[in-house]
Amino acid sequence: MSMEQRETAAILIIGNEILSGRTQDRNIQHIATHMTDIGIAMMEVRVVPDIPHYIVDAVKALSAAHSYVFTTGGIGPTHDDITAENVAAAFDVPLEENKDARDMLQAYYGDEGLTKSRLRMARIPKGAKLIPNQVTSAPGFIIENVHVMAGVPRIMQDMLTHILPSLQGGAPILSNTVTCELTESILAEKLAQLQLDNVDVEIGSYPYYSSGSLGVSLVVRTTEADRLEAVTIALESLVQELGAAPKRMEIAKKS
Amino acid sequence: MSMEQRETAAILIIGNEILSGRTQDRNIQHIATHMTDIGIAMMEVRVVPDIPHYIVDAVKALSAAHSYVFTTGGIGPTHDDITAENVAAAFDVPLEENKDARDMLQAYYGDEGLTKSRLRMARIPKGAKLIPNQVTSAPGFIIENVHVMAGVPRIMQDMLTHILPSLQGGAPILSNTVTCELTESILAEKLAQLQLDNVDVEIGSYPYYSSGSLGVSLVVRTTEADRLEAVTIALESLVQELGAAPKRMEIAKKS
Repeated sequence: MSMEQRETAAILIIGNEILSGRTQDRNIQHIATHMTDIGIAMMEVRVVPDIPHYIVDAVKALSAAHSYVFTTGGIGPTHDDITAENVAAAFDVPLEENKDARDMLQAYYGDEGLTKSRLRMARIPKGAKLIPNQVTSAPGFIIENVHVMAGVPRIMQDMLTHILPSLQGGAPILSNTVTCELTESILAEKLAQLQLDNVDVEIGSYPYYSSGSLGVSLVVRTTEADRLEAVTIALESLVQELGAAPKRMEIAKKS
Repeated sequence: MSMEQRETAAILIIGNEILSGRTQDRNIQHIATHMTDIGIAMMEVRVVPDIPHYIVDAVKALSAAHSYVFTTGGIGPTHDDITAENVAAAFDVPLEENKDARDMLQAYYGDEGLTKSRLRMARIPKGAKLIPNQVTSAPGFIIENVHVMAGVPRIMQDMLTHILPSLQGGAPILSNTVTCELTESILAEKLAQLQLDNVDVEIGSYPYYSSGSLGVSLVVRTTEADRLEAVTIALESLVQELGAAPKRMEIAKKS
């Protein structure tokens, strides 16, 4: 498996609240996990502020570099929601009132409730396809390879569910995780050799620090179930040779 | 307060484990909160994989654009720890064994324990200044305006503590948060006017969805305590005019 050979994706988080530290992001992991499950390689994440040129530049760069881009945040009705106009600018198309989006908002809010502020959420870049939103009715949209979603996790998750069937993935990336109470420096040399001997799989080493002691999670990733098993067994032997007890977390879990 | 006028910062997270969805990032919010506290504007975050050109390109771009850059991840002893060599490449300096880093590792592991793998962690870009690490002894480093730290949150936090006194911040950014059970579309028009009437403060609107109901957190940010109080009171009046009960979360909390 080479990450470079498969379809790739990037996430663009638009929001001052993540950059100020006020809010803990919960969207990256959700989107990333779904991409891994359908065999798309998540290659890059950017978080940018609610400032036009940051959004335009990031949309252009990520759209050009990857098969799919997913943005979250900035599509509500308030003054600091500036995603739609800047995505339109990135693709040099006008932002206009979308009839279908207006109909969705009208069905939800009624004729009386269709205020000027709510109609802001019907402003969609020309030519974009809408993404339904079953939580608050205000749609996201898809333009070229960029999927523009809400920032509220519950709404983003609903929108992503609608998008997933349209994406062209590859073979799911399978993984095993083996943990042990060794430090990385004890493992490093043999682990590097194991990686060299098995260049078709990806072996990652992720140290953790918990309750005053260090350990490491070793992760084997590949699309081939038999290779996953073979390299995981070799990894477990390696840990045992070094005098520790390997603990396999789950078998062939998608991660 | 203009975000553009103050010192700016960016975070670069280096790690496949975040991009695969395996690990929930816990470093962005920690670093961002500390920057806000000392009056540095966090402008951008990027997450990139363990692939050389991604690291080199991101270090170059972020270092050129911001006063400070903070990287996390990829400085351990294993084969997938490639941050040091790629930061060196970004600044076109050699990576070499640093005597002080070697001494730190030797003091911790002893002469016998100073293995080839552990010595990998003494390879530091020429001219860089070390960042101590009281958890595992392997240092981070500072080169130009780039601060290279570990990815394990406990170790990163220790390193950041050492770095903070050396940063040139500005007046702390003060904030108040007012929550209410209104939807953003009800608030949007009056809120936009309040922002227009008070261009020296930043007013953010962050919807949330909890237990089946929507609400919104309204955040006022400025460095001036009197302006913070005045605009917060105006915001509370606005919410009351719309028939809801404003709830001020904390007074003049740094956020």
